[in-house]
Amino acid sequence: MVVVLKPDTKEEQIENLKVWLSSMGISTHISRGVNHTIVGLVGDTSVVDMDLVRALDIVENVQRIQEPFKNANRKFHNADQVVDIAGVKIGGGNFQIIAGPCSVESEAQVCEIAERVKAAGAGLLRGGAFKPRTSPYAFQGLKGDGLKLLVEAKQLTGLPIVSEIMNAVHIPMFEESVDLVQVGARNMQNFELLKEVGKMSKPILLKRGLANTIDELLMSAEYIMASGNENVILCERGIRTFETRTRNTLDLSAVPVLKKLTHLPIVVDPSHAMGYAHLVKPMAMAATVAGADGLMIEVHNNPAKALCDGPQSLTPDQFDDVAKQVFQLRPFACKYDY
Amino acid sequence: MVVVLKPDTKEEQIENLKVWLSSMGISTHISRGVNHTIVGLVGDTSVVDMDLVRALDIVENVQRIQEPFKNANRKFHNADQVVDIAGVKIGGGNFQIIAGPCSVESEAQVCEIAERVKAAGAGLLRGGAFKPRTSPYAFQGLKGDGLKLLVEAKQLTGLPIVSEIMNAVHIPMFEESVDLVQVGARNMQNFELLKEVGKMSKPILLKRGLANTIDELLMSAEYIMASGNENVILCERGIRTFETRTRNTLDLSAVPVLKKLTHLPIVVDPSHAMGYAHLVKPMAMAATVAGADGLMIEVHNNPAKALCDGPQSLTPDQFDDVAKQVFQLRPFACKYDY
Amino acid sequence: MVVVLKPDTKEEQIENLKVWLSSMGISTHISRGVNHTIVGLVGDTSVVDMDLVRALDIVENVQRIQEPFKNANRKFHNADQVVDIAGVKIGGGNFQIIAGPCSVESEAQVCEIAERVKAAGAGLLRGGAFKPRTSPYAFQGLKGDGLKLLVEAKQLTGLPIVSEIMNAVHIPMFEESVDLVQVGARNMQNFELLKEVGKMSKPILLKRGLANTIDELLMSAEYIMASGNENVILCERGIRTFETRTRNTLDLSAVPVLKKLTHLPIVVDPSHAMGYAHLVKPMAMAATVAGADGLMIEVHNNPAKALCDGPQSLTPDQFDDVAKQVFQLRPFACKYDY
Amino acid sequence: MVVVLKPDTKEEQIENLKVWLSSMGISTHISRGVNHTIVGLVGDTSVVDMDLVRALDIVENVQRIQEPFKNANRKFHNADQVVDIAGVKIGGGNFQIIAGPCSVESEAQVCEIAERVKAAGAGLLRGGAFKPRTSPYAFQGLKGDGLKLLVEAKQLTGLPIVSEIMNAVHIPMFEESVDLVQVGARNMQNFELLKEVGKMSKPILLKRGLANTIDELLMSAEYIMASGNENVILCERGIRTFETRTRNTLDLSAVPVLKKLTHLPIVVDPSHAMGYAHLVKPMAMAATVAGADGLMIEVHNNPAKALCDGPQSLTPDQFDDVAKQVFQLRPFACKYDY
Repeated sequence: MVVVLKPDTKEEQIENLKVWLSSMGISTHISRGVNHTIVGLVGDTSVVDMDLVRALDIVENVQRIQEPFKNANRKFHNADQVVDIAGVKIGGGNFQIIAGPCSVESEAQVCEIAERVKAAGAGLLRGGAFKPRTSPYAFQGLKGDGLKLLVEAKQLTGLPIVSEIMNAVHIPMFEESVDLVQVGARNMQNFELLKEVGKMSKPILLKRGLANTIDELLMSAEYIMASGNENVILCERGIRTFETRTRNTLDLSAVPVLKKLTHLPIVVDPSHAMGYAHLVKPMAMAATVAGADGLMIEVHNNPAKALCDGPQSLTPDQFDDVAKQVFQLRPFACKYDY
Repeated sequence: MVVVLKPDTKEEQIENLKVWLSSMGISTHISRGVNHTIVGLVGDTSVVDMDLVRALDIVENVQRIQEPFKNANRKFHNADQVVDIAGVKIGGGNFQIIAGPCSVESEAQVCEIAERVKAAGAGLLRGGAFKPRTSPYAFQGLKGDGLKLLVEAKQLTGLPIVSEIMNAVHIPMFEESVDLVQVGARNMQNFELLKEVGKMSKPILLKRGLANTIDELLMSAEYIMASGNENVILCERGIRTFETRTRNTLDLSAVPVLKKLTHLPIVVDPSHAMGYAHLVKPMAMAATVAGADGLMIEVHNNPAKALCDGPQSLTPDQFDDVAKQVFQLRPFACKYDY
Repeated sequence: MVVVLKPDTKEEQIENLKVWLSSMGISTHISRGVNHTIVGLVGDTSVVDMDLVRALDIVENVQRIQEPFKNANRKFHNADQVVDIAGVKIGGGNFQIIAGPCSVESEAQVCEIAERVKAAGAGLLRGGAFKPRTSPYAFQGLKGDGLKLLVEAKQLTGLPIVSEIMNAVHIPMFEESVDLVQVGARNMQNFELLKEVGKMSKPILLKRGLANTIDELLMSAEYIMASGNENVILCERGIRTFETRTRNTLDLSAVPVLKKLTHLPIVVDPSHAMGYAHLVKPMAMAATVAGADGLMIEVHNNPAKALCDGPQSLTPDQFDDVAKQVFQLRPFACKYDY
Repeated sequence: MVVVLKPDTKEEQIENLKVWLSSMGISTHISRGVNHTIVGLVGDTSVVDMDLVRALDIVENVQRIQEPFKNANRKFHNADQVVDIAGVKIGGGNFQIIAGPCSVESEAQVCEIAERVKAAGAGLLRGGAFKPRTSPYAFQGLKGDGLKLLVEAKQLTGLPIVSEIMNAVHIPMFEESVDLVQVGARNMQNFELLKEVGKMSKPILLKRGLANTIDELLMSAEYIMASGNENVILCERGIRTFETRTRNTLDLSAVPVLKKLTHLPIVVDPSHAMGYAHLVKPMAMAATVAGADGLMIEVHNNPAKALCDGPQSLTPDQFDDVAKQVFQLRPFACKYDY
């Protein structure tokens, strides 16, 4: 961290600053320029609150040189992390499509979709059992029963299962049945939940929050990893902007940016980002060639109520087409050599 | 809710839509215009997922007419809600300043600040015991010990205390010691936590998330109220934008917008929104005349390390000045008559 | 346009509304529902200011059904627009890379780059002669002399040239020398300039503004087309968000969204959006498979000052690699059938 | 400007950097720390493109210490700028309300409003003659005839007039008739227009763009001032965010932030920011106590079509009330002492 002091800073104030930083285990390197004095911080500056330093009376400006994340930092872990999910690998050249319904509704539904997405090449089955809903009056998912249906679909197809956890009290249930535990966008900075899933034996899929920076995503991964769980997969799922033609704005550049900063695998979820089925295919294709380690795509079957095929979920037939395109593009995907 | 169908929608599809809506208890009123058929939804449309309907193949567009919040809706609760916090009232013409340190550090610190802010006219004492920190390596607060120090300060000064809860497992501890339980911006859509604090006997201070709309804030209040706790105070504390001269952008217009939509009291926190002490006073003054029911202001004492007076916290002397200005302006505040 | 009136609207007010709309040539279709009266607007609603209607006292809500753009609307122009730029075609299956330096600096520079990008497969040469700069003290481009150097490079290579216009007084100069006239992001809503370039004989490349929606981009295209110039190419170049790891956030979903709304070709500029050379390649690849009709990429040669190769511009060798990848992917690009 | 180099930077590269900077008249001060070498730039760094430096291969990070604006910088012009508009002063303790219709429609309209707002205490009359409209099909204003009507209203009331210019070719017309020339939000970075109005003899009201930072606003003021016109008034009118309950988000903190950075007067326009008349009063009051030097408020009279009183414009009676509240609060406004 480099701190630029204001021109009129007194020696006594600089001394105070050094003492305060020293109390956090940080030593300092002072450089006096023509107009400004610059203080270089040496040591583990991840403990230093940058906003606090920036707001000091004597500080003109401050900037980090070292990233405040360590476990998630490629600088200290050069090789790509390969995450093993019940035998299915993501990262380090291993690419997977995670597919399945938004919400688990019935055995027939989840099993039929599981078989269809497996046949199309998906490597993991997703399905929501506990659903974060903006309204307390909306359907909140089948909960424990939903997880049981997912397990049945897994037994049928062999596909490992992915589902979202919203409450640490459900951890034993998830440990037992879920292969890849998802932390949703709204809980990306639920630090208490991050600490707890960091103690799980299962890998974690961490989704980027709607208004969170890439650095904040990495700091949340750091929470999980600092609790002992190194198997974290990051997921870009769109950020909130002023544009209203899509539900969110998919920040695909997060893929190459993250590839440089971290060794963790990166998955892209075009379904939630877009909010409309017809936009999923081009964004899935784009994410693939941008070098994502996987995709997360919603698939829905609904022979009875044809009405509900409309939204962000693809039909199994549409998914077949997307998967075909994606696997065709995969050999041409951008490769990173960091 | 009004649903506009595409020009080429078939009768059979309209029938399917009616059946599907009917399964949710919603009846429909069909109106055939020159080009478009319009479906009016009658009943409790708060159960209908608007995004789902909008994405249906046959739907051109959809718009809500009724707000999806009920308990928090002024239409059904015309009179301002007055929240009683251990005898101190907020709302319905009652205005309070909530002041205190960002983090509780020591008995001396919190007690000295408590006495100073009380003398200046603050009605409640705030202090962080459990701290949400972006980095897992940063100081996470004194936790239970911090709450004990707040209780001591309360005994000394009589000021009810406000502190942030981050985990439902701490609810018994908060029930015992805290008078107004804060749910922070990062947990505004931690629906599991909202449901649990909705069962508490203490009032809740709900902060707006950094990227959450005013409607989402009201839906989160609705979660708390639907669980049985009607004593919710809303707090505007800045939203995330592209501007970097302030930590966040304080959306002061949230005050008049919320006054029309809800009967719940609205408090403004200029300290967190701005991130710099010198911007707190003008924004505190502006929030007061805009008709806020209260302010939340960080105050820090630090005679020994003069260094730390810089950040977003005011010194007690600076707070004296802000409080004086605010109380002077209070009689001229904008009044709402909804 | 569908206008939902408030429950207590009086007949007289509805009558006033009808008269006012009628004065704009709009007839109305009234539908009385259980709670709300709905007014359907029939006619050319593109003349109606939606914000004005929404803010009327008697209006609960309003929504457009017809898009307010006509010339730019695919509904009225089903076939893809093919824009011919001095013999080089973009759109309707024709894909081009536009490459060249950010600023034209010298004959040697622009000619060397022109030859290199041509060899790599670029179809057009870009180069800034008039530069929009945030600071009045920064280099503002070689202006007319820059255009002359571009013309020389064109004579040498045969590549048509693309350059940004900032002032309508330069139109004669651009008519004479430039093949594709660029309107930059900062001028996307400089309506006076749009009207004037709409009278030019040359095709226009219209860049999306940093904080402009896709609909606003189309309305600006509409300005140009309404003045008589149908040859408009749209360009996505990143929007402003809170993320700071990239200069802007490239909204790649604008490609499929625009493909549905308009028949105009869409080009993507990853160089300006990203701000860092190492992010250009993955985003160029992603844009290609997402179905963009072209790319706009900055290329810089600088044998003498190796220092300046760093920024958003690629070296000719890096561009060779990007172009190779892009052309390899082009056959697999997403196809749209609207 | 302080440039932090990457750890592995070679001496030769540092030498190249120094030569390059020297070619721009910048000398350097090198400081070698434990891990990083830091380069302090000495001289007029406003000519240096920070993005370009940041993107150099050898650069880890870069930060400005000096602001890149000079003429607009309070550091070099300590006393508040007082702008004299045909005898009416704004800034340096002089507060004015600028009021009038959005669009000039007729002599009766503009004269009646002018008399009403004058009676209520407004110091200047605003009125749109040339209107920037998103749609080419919408009413674009009465243009020159509109300016003539404003002049008539000025002759009647003595109120100086404010109107927006969109095209430099209209400068002679504006020089002749308008007292304060407005550059609108969409033209804030129309640098060609800024240069031209910088040569006018009349003061300029510069509105902040919808997605422009405070620093960019100051750089645009710098353009005007660098052309010779020191009489610039800045105007905050709301920025674009994700919130949809207001048309834009009024960034009131721009007032105290700008007060510290610049000596130029700051005016707030709550009408355009909010988009709804009922939100204008609280925001006008808040802006006043935050220390704005003036307000810009839309007022509309429409005895015949009561319908159009709804939108963002106040009726004369509503304006009377707002003005009364504002003048009552003015003595209590936040004072800045920089």
